[in-house]
Amino acid sequence: MDTQQTPADADAGEDFAFDVLAQRCPSRPVLEHITGRWGSLVLIALREKPARFNELRRRVGGVSEKMLAQGLHALERDGFVAREVHSTIPPRVEYSLTPLGSQTAEMLWELIMHLEYAMPHVLRSQQSYDAAASAEA
Amino acid sequence: MDTQQTPADADAGEDFAFDVLAQRCPSRPVLEHITGRWGSLVLIALREKPARFNELRRRVGGVSEKMLAQGLHALERDGFVAREVHSTIPPRVEYSLTPLGSQTAEMLWELIMHLEYAMPHVLRSQQSYDAAASAEA
Repeated sequence: MDTQQTPADADAGEDFAFDVLAQRCPSRPVLEHITGRWGSLVLIALREKPARFNELRRRVGGVSEKMLAQGLHALERDGFVAREVHSTIPPRVEYSLTPLGSQTAEMLWELIMHLEYAMPHVLRSQQSYDAAASAEA
Repeated sequence: MDTQQTPADADAGEDFAFDVLAQRCPSRPVLEHITGRWGSLVLIALREKPARFNELRRRVGGVSEKMLAQGLHALERDGFVAREVHSTIPPRVEYSLTPLGSQTAEMLWELIMHLEYAMPHVLRSQQSYDAAASAEA
């Protein structure tokens, strides 16, 4: 699905029709939806149980209404999130993970657990980097 | 490391000092560095072997010089990427993954393989979403 030859095509050594390293591959915007600023946190927040919009907004600290709506829209269009309207009065709209969304959220969860575990190391690295940079200045 | 109580703290059911769902957790910018638009692709591109700046720029289709430099800087400061200056004439600067960067790149690689594998499903989902949206309009 890529119209451009890049060194990545030759380097990858894997036979995939999609290649995120290739500029025009349609997988690239989808990667951004699931790993972008809010997409990943929305998937993680839905991992445990479905949620309504405002509940989800509370789970994901700091997300604005607009950003959450955009993120949910992209994830629904890509097939990671299902939006279900329950015909109560007033109608109740609930968001949940599809099977694909659920698999993806598990992988993101592992990545995030790995990151949270590594954070003391990351903070030490940042400190020594900044100390070296200010010593040079 | 979070100064703000969010429902996520109560919901998570895991005992971690860091929590990306909490707005002010220092893990959140780091998550963005490794999963952001270019950070994830740089980690993936360095996964096979170290590279010099221009080589890396060719591997990651579409990245600008400025974006690549910023991404590398953040990943180096966080301790995912090592920058090594070889004292040749002219000096040769090479970027490689640290052990932490390598573990992280493996997890991103799995996520990306999962995504590339799921892409036909994602494209079908986008098509039916768009068809439903235009039928409503």
